[in-house]
Amino acid sequence: MKDKQFLMIPGPTPVPERALLAMAKHPPGHRSPEFSAIMQEVYRDLKWLFRTEEDVFVYTSSGTGAMEAAIFNLVNPGDKVLSLVMGNFSERWAKIARTRGAEVESINFDWGRAVDPAVLKQRLEQDVNREIKFVTLIHNETSTGVTNDLQALTAIIKEHGALSIVDGVTSVGAIPVKMDEWGIDVLVSGSQKGFMIPPGLAFLACSKKAWAVHEKCQNPSFYFNFVAYKKSVDENTTPYTPNVSLIAALKETLDMMKEEGLENIYGRHAKLACMVRNGVKRLGLKLFVEDDATGSNVITSICPPEGISVPDIRKTLNKDYDIVVANGQGKLKDRIFRIGHLGFVSERDVITALGALEESIKKLKPSFTAL
Amino acid sequence: MKDKQFLMIPGPTPVPERALLAMAKHPPGHRSPEFSAIMQEVYRDLKWLFRTEEDVFVYTSSGTGAMEAAIFNLVNPGDKVLSLVMGNFSERWAKIARTRGAEVESINFDWGRAVDPAVLKQRLEQDVNREIKFVTLIHNETSTGVTNDLQALTAIIKEHGALSIVDGVTSVGAIPVKMDEWGIDVLVSGSQKGFMIPPGLAFLACSKKAWAVHEKCQNPSFYFNFVAYKKSVDENTTPYTPNVSLIAALKETLDMMKEEGLENIYGRHAKLACMVRNGVKRLGLKLFVEDDATGSNVITSICPPEGISVPDIRKTLNKDYDIVVANGQGKLKDRIFRIGHLGFVSERDVITALGALEESIKKLKPSFTAL
Repeated sequence: MKDKQFLMIPGPTPVPERALLAMAKHPPGHRSPEFSAIMQEVYRDLKWLFRTEEDVFVYTSSGTGAMEAAIFNLVNPGDKVLSLVMGNFSERWAKIARTRGAEVESINFDWGRAVDPAVLKQRLEQDVNREIKFVTLIHNETSTGVTNDLQALTAIIKEHGALSIVDGVTSVGAIPVKMDEWGIDVLVSGSQKGFMIPPGLAFLACSKKAWAVHEKCQNPSFYFNFVAYKKSVDENTTPYTPNVSLIAALKETLDMMKEEGLENIYGRHAKLACMVRNGVKRLGLKLFVEDDATGSNVITSICPPEGISVPDIRKTLNKDYDIVVANGQGKLKDRIFRIGHLGFVSERDVITALGALEESIKKLKPSFTAL
Repeated sequence: MKDKQFLMIPGPTPVPERALLAMAKHPPGHRSPEFSAIMQEVYRDLKWLFRTEEDVFVYTSSGTGAMEAAIFNLVNPGDKVLSLVMGNFSERWAKIARTRGAEVESINFDWGRAVDPAVLKQRLEQDVNREIKFVTLIHNETSTGVTNDLQALTAIIKEHGALSIVDGVTSVGAIPVKMDEWGIDVLVSGSQKGFMIPPGLAFLACSKKAWAVHEKCQNPSFYFNFVAYKKSVDENTTPYTPNVSLIAALKETLDMMKEEGLENIYGRHAKLACMVRNGVKRLGLKLFVEDDATGSNVITSICPPEGISVPDIRKTLNKDYDIVVANGQGKLKDRIFRIGHLGFVSERDVITALGALEESIKKLKPSFTAL
């Protein structure tokens, strides 16, 4: 049905009406006192959301832009980077670091598995001369639906002395991420996820330890340069014309998040994930990530039932029930489909998705019966 | 009056209702057939607007992001760049090129003056060994309200053999820019200007000659890399999650621009500029750019009348008449104010602004009488 489509992909995610209406307003001037007042609140609330005392920079870019910002502001050509890879997005760190001329060593884990802290610990213990300067990793690997034990991993990295550079694109604002308490050095995220607004803004916070490394880095970026953004935070502005409309929308959703409360947000995502996992199992389908401890609270990867293809499931859900779910990525394309339950999603949405999934499977395979 | 503010600054510029309402819709998935259909139209229409057969890349970034893309995809450290500077924005090219490690030589022209083609010609003729590989310049210098004779300048650069890298941020879609016919090698622009949508997207097109130079460049950017964007244009997509809401709005404004017609758009901006210049002179105020041939069609810089400060004029226009005009930038701060007449602006808006300007001056200086 036209204009009825509902996204249950890992991003863009549904946007609340308050934010949509903020975007429909005439854009304010970015150098006005009115806009500075908005920026001041946004900068303050982002610190709350990132659980950090450090400044959070706001880039007008995709999440990948903030990843580039992290690498380019810290890593010099020839620096040794250890990259923990278990999917498409965690691998992106390695690609960007190589683009920057770093000496990148990847440790690959099976797609669908989390990073094994013991493997990381062993590798870093071997690095007796402390040659590894950075470890890149992801909190929630969106391409597989796996969440790493970020607290354990950052503790191991901290003990070694390297800097942890963390992709929190689909975790910040949805599952617990405690930047300061866990000792994360660099944390990046993107707007079209837990932040509940459309894509176009990216966020980055860095620790004092990371800042000291930045100061010795021959930063090759003008647009993403930490120094310019740091100065702008102090002045409640941005270095270049930002996406003022998205920032106005972000102010609305940050207000909503404060009203709901962080623990409630985390709890809601945990509950939604539990509902999806149980519902999928009840339908007799196989979860791609069977281990509940590493299955993501924001996206669930599902193997199609015998005799039904992923494209057919996605097409039926979309065409007949106006629900969009994601395909697998890379080597998982057509092997799994992924249901996003991230951001502005309620229990009603999950019930809807599970009901529509059951109906779709029945249509495609009339002999199908749920468990 | 609350929510009544009207922007007459050089960006963000007013946004038509059609585009605002497109932004208020739920964002589409960026990997959906529906969104690819939008991208296909947008890519096609951007070529029409840039007057080029080359692809136009769409970056989710500020205009400065596309400037970084241009430099990083073409210039290697040590390359010799000639930078034509006559204001804050033309100077940005030199800064970005220096960040990239280029050997930058600036030719500075007085703020308020256009680049003198004879000076450029003479400098390039001296370069008998063709050491200068790139010339950076701006079409319309937003900080002063001066438009360069881009056709003449690119012809001189072409004859020398260097690549022309042009900031068309406030010119594309407002005043004539003929990329292919004039032989522009790289042309960048930004969404919150002639494109009539909020900030957050930037555009870049490059000639075949520039592409050949790109292929020999050790591009240090992942996020802005030409190759990834070129591939995406061919597939009607973008390499990373783009600002889908702004792109949906852009489709609306490109449709509006096609309905109006390019020559009519150029004519409208020329007429608005003429009205502003005449109106300002009629009020007995001094134009900062007195030469009609170089005065910009999209922004007019005005010297405040004797005894009235720029902040007072801006404050009165804003507070009493809900109109925002811009201050001068850098060394022109508080020496000029700037009225933008760029994008979704009609004659009615100019009449309004001139009327409010007259009333503001009368308030601030009761003895004032127009000529």
